[in-house]
Amino acid sequence: MVPGVEFAGVGAGIKPSGLDLGIALFKEEMNVLTLYTKNRVKAAHILYDRKIDGNPVRALVVNSGCANACTGNAGMSDIRTIVGGLASHLRIPEKKILFASTGVIGKRLSIQKILHVIPQLARNLKESHIDAFAQAIMTTDTYPKIIQETFRGKKTYRIVGVAKGSGMINPLFATMLAFVFTDYPVSRATIQRTFVSAVSESFERITVDGECSTNDTVMLFTKRGGEDVSALGAFKETLFSVMKELAVMIVRDGEGATRVIHITVKGAKKREIAEKIARRISVSPLTKTAFFGCDPNWGRIIAAAGDAGVAIEPSKAEIIMQGEVLAREGVEVPFNEEAVKKLMGKKEVELVVDLHDGKASFDIYTTDFTYDYVRINASYRS
Amino acid sequence: MVPGVEFAGVGAGIKPSGLDLGIALFKEEMNVLTLYTKNRVKAAHILYDRKIDGNPVRALVVNSGCANACTGNAGMSDIRTIVGGLASHLRIPEKKILFASTGVIGKRLSIQKILHVIPQLARNLKESHIDAFAQAIMTTDTYPKIIQETFRGKKTYRIVGVAKGSGMINPLFATMLAFVFTDYPVSRATIQRTFVSAVSESFERITVDGECSTNDTVMLFTKRGGEDVSALGAFKETLFSVMKELAVMIVRDGEGATRVIHITVKGAKKREIAEKIARRISVSPLTKTAFFGCDPNWGRIIAAAGDAGVAIEPSKAEIIMQGEVLAREGVEVPFNEEAVKKLMGKKEVELVVDLHDGKASFDIYTTDFTYDYVRINASYRS
Repeated sequence: MVPGVEFAGVGAGIKPSGLDLGIALFKEEMNVLTLYTKNRVKAAHILYDRKIDGNPVRALVVNSGCANACTGNAGMSDIRTIVGGLASHLRIPEKKILFASTGVIGKRLSIQKILHVIPQLARNLKESHIDAFAQAIMTTDTYPKIIQETFRGKKTYRIVGVAKGSGMINPLFATMLAFVFTDYPVSRATIQRTFVSAVSESFERITVDGECSTNDTVMLFTKRGGEDVSALGAFKETLFSVMKELAVMIVRDGEGATRVIHITVKGAKKREIAEKIARRISVSPLTKTAFFGCDPNWGRIIAAAGDAGVAIEPSKAEIIMQGEVLAREGVEVPFNEEAVKKLMGKKEVELVVDLHDGKASFDIYTTDFTYDYVRINASYRS
Repeated sequence: MVPGVEFAGVGAGIKPSGLDLGIALFKEEMNVLTLYTKNRVKAAHILYDRKIDGNPVRALVVNSGCANACTGNAGMSDIRTIVGGLASHLRIPEKKILFASTGVIGKRLSIQKILHVIPQLARNLKESHIDAFAQAIMTTDTYPKIIQETFRGKKTYRIVGVAKGSGMINPLFATMLAFVFTDYPVSRATIQRTFVSAVSESFERITVDGECSTNDTVMLFTKRGGEDVSALGAFKETLFSVMKELAVMIVRDGEGATRVIHITVKGAKKREIAEKIARRISVSPLTKTAFFGCDPNWGRIIAAAGDAGVAIEPSKAEIIMQGEVLAREGVEVPFNEEAVKKLMGKKEVELVVDLHDGKASFDIYTTDFTYDYVRINASYRS
């Protein structure tokens, strides 16, 4: 719980079942920092929120089941109608309300259903209702993703993070929705760079399917006024850990995933080279299906590395799976295939590609590619 | 059949079963034009062939079951041993023999098995044995891919194309192995540009899984001496059609594919924009699983388009599936979902994305993404 931040989540009928409309209401105005998808096609909520960004806010409304993307002017007008209803019911200015949607692209929000449940939503508001809020943003997620931590300055501060995955998780900006709330008082300017780099070390370090969503949104809400500089270091550390943990939770619950693969490319001449190779391996369908089959098929890994569009010296490369060396100087070394298969069957798998060509490195988290990914996505809308 | 070109294929035991070693032997030296993978990690045969490229050749040896990639100096030496055995048995110079491999990366060729069957391979040589040759390069292909056509100049010329897919088929250079043989006499210089553009209009216009192989090789063998310029136009036309048909056969037999999707992006300001968007859609797992599920989920298509890294005006875009308009000016138009689902169930599906922003266009062929792709690749090596 974060003092002064109340949550609620209800089922408005946007999805066939479950909670699909949520709100976070702040007793006092909070600062907000935001980052949105790099996709050229952006959801209505992003176009809407951008006009509010930078100003203090009183509430965040969220929905699942409908992305409200590719809905044109009508989609923008739908948001204004909903925000208008909420603003008058909660008696806060329209311009103090942010919006975020996730779900099917191209469909309109059902205004009537949403306006109908606003009184119920308002009645449910409680500091302890974060679970209902987290459920209200779930789509193909199998469980809500919430992290709560504390850190110390002049007093003990609280920080809560909520996120949803779990498809359209891409390697350049990797989550659909993630929100972090804290009662730590700090100005936007003080933490702008911390926020951006925390996102780049967490949500930009994961992938499920290499798809970049139209709706990706990360928001950090902080208390206004009376900065407590003594806690700045602790805040940064906690923010990084909360965002990282949320990001890994998204991968762990990736669509159809049976395991998390942590890929580290090291020994690169430059960080950019390590990054390009790590990202290329992390989206390779052949590598990801081999992980599903617990197949130590290092040839696919090095083939993906060679296709990353950067210079690579295959004859120097070493490939290490769960601590077992599979290839050195670009060629196979004897290894116990059955033993490695067994090690690859664990829930978390460590893959290291050492280029032996320098000192730079980069790491990223991905999933295996499974029957269930196909099943979920061949039938998502129906 | 191409007069003067004999084929053979035998089972050497490189694969657990089936034919896996083939040869094409030319009565007289032929010219050869080649294009190889853009992957930085290249198979041994590519490094080997490059030293012969440009000179007339007498034979092409092929094998499946082992890519002979990432095998270092040992892999090169294995090729030399095999070529040596063949050269002495067939009494042709070693330097007149090209080699091409496909299969698992990182494993060595079994020299003994191959040398053992060389006499049998030589005995089987016949102009009519193209089918055995085509089978000898199959890996996960479900049928051999052969095209035979004729065209007229001073006489009737023959052209035969053979290819194999069907995984690691990528959008930048799209086939693992494809060989075209013709008795049309023409110099390398005369058709160099034709060859490159025929490849770029065929094998570079398909994708199965976005993976770029270490072994991709296209070779065109033509008769030497006495150019027949009268047939040049007919030759070009036939070469384009043979390569295009081979390329589409590869997609049709793509790993686990149930249908071929022909994606055309038009109305772009520049061809590069149309190409980037078409290629991005063609590898999108969410789009490809939706095609498997016959789901007219145009939102995923436009989201992939928006993620292509080029400017796009979503509010102008039109999406047409099998002739039915799903979205216009970036928003959904009413369509009969059941009727479109049925149309998407056909073996060949036409998707048009019209950007309404210019006159340039680009088209590409891809597959749907299915349970069987996962099944095949989670267990390919075992």
